[in-house]
Amino acid sequence: MTRPDDVETLVAGARDGSARAVARLISLVEDRSALLREVSAALAPTAGRAHVVGLTGSPGVGKSTSTSALVSRLREVGRTVGVLAVDPTSPFTGGALLGDRIRMQDHATDAGVYIRSMASRGHLGGLSTSAPQALRVFDAAGCDIVLVETVGVGQSEVEIAGIADTTLVLLAPGMGDGIQAAKAGILEIGDIFCINKADRDGAESTRRELRSVLAMSAGRDGWKPPIAMTVATTGDGLDALVEQIDAHRAHLRDSGGLQRRRLSGARREIEALAVAAVQERLAHVSGHADLESLAEQVLAGTNDPFAAADALVAGLERHDTQDNEVAVTDVTRGTQ
Amino acid sequence: MTRPDDVETLVAGARDGSARAVARLISLVEDRSALLREVSAALAPTAGRAHVVGLTGSPGVGKSTSTSALVSRLREVGRTVGVLAVDPTSPFTGGALLGDRIRMQDHATDAGVYIRSMASRGHLGGLSTSAPQALRVFDAAGCDIVLVETVGVGQSEVEIAGIADTTLVLLAPGMGDGIQAAKAGILEIGDIFCINKADRDGAESTRRELRSVLAMSAGRDGWKPPIAMTVATTGDGLDALVEQIDAHRAHLRDSGGLQRRRLSGARREIEALAVAAVQERLAHVSGHADLESLAEQVLAGTNDPFAAADALVAGLERHDTQDNEVAVTDVTRGTQ
Repeated sequence: MTRPDDVETLVAGARDGSARAVARLISLVEDRSALLREVSAALAPTAGRAHVVGLTGSPGVGKSTSTSALVSRLREVGRTVGVLAVDPTSPFTGGALLGDRIRMQDHATDAGVYIRSMASRGHLGGLSTSAPQALRVFDAAGCDIVLVETVGVGQSEVEIAGIADTTLVLLAPGMGDGIQAAKAGILEIGDIFCINKADRDGAESTRRELRSVLAMSAGRDGWKPPIAMTVATTGDGLDALVEQIDAHRAHLRDSGGLQRRRLSGARREIEALAVAAVQERLAHVSGHADLESLAEQVLAGTNDPFAAADALVAGLERHDTQDNEVAVTDVTRGTQ
Repeated sequence: MTRPDDVETLVAGARDGSARAVARLISLVEDRSALLREVSAALAPTAGRAHVVGLTGSPGVGKSTSTSALVSRLREVGRTVGVLAVDPTSPFTGGALLGDRIRMQDHATDAGVYIRSMASRGHLGGLSTSAPQALRVFDAAGCDIVLVETVGVGQSEVEIAGIADTTLVLLAPGMGDGIQAAKAGILEIGDIFCINKADRDGAESTRRELRSVLAMSAGRDGWKPPIAMTVATTGDGLDALVEQIDAHRAHLRDSGGLQRRRLSGARREIEALAVAAVQERLAHVSGHADLESLAEQVLAGTNDPFAAADALVAGLERHDTQDNEVAVTDVTRGTQ
């Protein structure tokens, strides 16, 4: 399909700002193609330049609209922007994606904006292995800032916070306030809180409630999370929000927090890739028939799940001892 | 702390309906104590009796209130109920849990109800390894039905659907409707949809919208998901909801869907436990110092994450070959 030497050409193309090259490279990393390792090696030297902002929040708070408004504001001041929209793979998301595309259409012809959606499911290792690679592609393309938006509810919410330099938690008046917001479990991952639809009733009381909950928090990296008030549909408050993002970035740089966060992100990524490689081997070595009969035993109550897991791992061990060469080859192939 | 022979006594206590024994057993499986394997083996023979109902939905739809209302209704008809409230481990959830406890207090003195909350984070293998064990404890205690409620947003939403026999997706009028509901990515996991707060404006239009979206779906196991309308605070519609849960259970039994779902759940559980065991070994064998320096290389751009993951797995391989006995012992200890 693609000749091996294409990777070099594609990376050069991305550096020259070719949207087509950026899209193709992200496809290569997302599809875990045979070229994935080559792409990864080619992108490594330029990684880490862009500031990564994760946007998270319950459905209905206006994540897509806020992303689009942030892109507009950042473009006005001449910054190059990447947008990674992470959505679960689902037959039902067609409509949602279409909606996003309509909102993002203003930016579709802007050469300073790269927009890409990525499925959060169906990857071994999940988002934590595929998203960082996509971010490196945006880096190669010279993006100053990358916005990572999660579409909907799912494990991606928490994973995003592990990938982003700055996590923006969006709320809206009258929904998810007070006890419900605390329940969402996203309060402790927020570096900046943003009450969108701030022209609606209850915005001020949501801010008060949020402020009192945040007062109990120590804050991460010596940073007290500010609360922004925005109306994404009109652009109100977006200037201040961008200033807060920049202030957080400056704080992270000066405090060493950026290096700490990125180191811990890299550790997670490497571990996830290592586990994914072993996981593929588990499936390959022990075979589906084995797992099926173990599952049947657990269901029948004749075996317990820990003993069944031991049997699965023992299959891997045996294989390692008997035929170590083959096992090593399988690991190398683990990312095809 | 606990003498080994206590496990037998505790399991016998749970069978006699001792809430204390149930609580202690769930603690043992949740904390991954040294007795975990013994507990797991003791519970295996009685597993699978209770019907497991997962409740999922965005914050604000009334999950806790609905769970409490369902418990009341089920108790009225004499059924024994277990409640597993899964919440993210967070310094901020104290308030939310307190809120839940207040709502659930009506049932606290009822000997036919077992209530337990469980953290979704901080476990190797996550919810998919700890929740099934807790369900087996409820099984041993003779529960007819177990309600699994997720508190807030997170990966638990999707994992719950993998554990439950029947997944109940809660919605509320005026929030998360239409495009936003589709975004949530939870539509395809719902066996029953429930529009709570059905006395509010917009309930009927939410039902219409939902019905038209569901019309495009094939349904799982030949079942067309019905839409229930409830007001959990007053108990309105709860009878019909319980009937729909029972109808779904009967359908799953008759169609073989129950066996299929539980087999696939058992496969996932065994795989997750096997991966968790290998993961612990990765951390143990390669040591944190190695991973730290690999992460620094990736951050500096002198190494790419795939090569770093290879190095980590290679450390495991080397260890296996050189000292296979020790490695096998480590696996056995993997669940302490």
